Amino acid sequence: MSHFDLHTQLDKDTIFLHDLDICQVRLVDDQRFPWLMLVPRIHAAVEFTDLNEANSIQVMREIRQVSQILEHWAQPDKINIAMLGNLVPQLHIHIVARKTNDSAWPGPVWGVPGTVRYKANDRMQAIRTLKSSFTW
Amino acid sequence: MSHFDLHTQLDKDTIFLHDLDICQVRLVDDQRFPWLMLVPRIHAAVEFTDLNEANSIQVMREIRQVSQILEHWAQPDKINIAMLGNLVPQLHIHIVARKTNDSAWPGPVWGVPGTVRYKANDRMQAIRTLKSSFTW
Repeated sequence: MSHFDLHTQLDKDTIFLHDLDICQVRLVDDQRFPWLMLVPRIHAAVEFTDLNEANSIQVMREIRQVSQILEHWAQPDKINIAMLGNLVPQLHIHIVARKTNDSAWPGPVWGVPGTVRYKANDRMQAIRTLKSSFTW
Repeated sequence: MSHFDLHTQLDKDTIFLHDLDICQVRLVDDQRFPWLMLVPRIHAAVEFTDLNEANSIQVMREIRQVSQILEHWAQPDKINIAMLGNLVPQLHIHIVARKTNDSAWPGPVWGVPGTVRYKANDRMQAIRTLKSSFTW
């Protein structure tokens, strides 16, 4: 694995959970939406097409694994998966658990103002539960 | 390939371009954003995790191929890739060419009112150019 630095904005908005083979898994610190993020630990990757074939297959596998963990944790009505990068160029993948009664439904969650950071106890509980979901 | 029906809303908003091994590729009829859509021709798929491993690898390959075609066609500043499905449950993948001076930048394109359908000549030209990009 080559040199990897996490973008300062991602570091500010999210919390480390687990390192998979390629991606670092992080919890987005916004209690409005159960929301995980995958950051491929690949230097200078911006677009999905910057990954080589083997890495993109592995990232796709990790997207599936983390989606299943999120489904189990949050019991959502729908999962949203996206690679945008309009504000933070470092390649990262959003996996968001949506409920039909969440505050942004049926719109997307990105750019919706009013981030609600987890309360300390809730954050600790979420991190503990999610970390225990990674059995590989 | 199992039975496949395109959701009526996707049929209304997009135009057929090409059938890849798994996905049907369509042009979103909105001149504000160069925007392609992949619809896996797999009956009843809603979440990405509904695909089996082999199909998800192939869909990922097709996302890469179509991203490259879109990059070549639209010369974007950023590609946005997303599977949302909050309004249309049938699994579909958005691949959107973003420019830093487009009308939604840096926000997402979904739910932004004011769809501008292509003029007939522009639509015909876009379809011709894009269809000729599929050499497989």
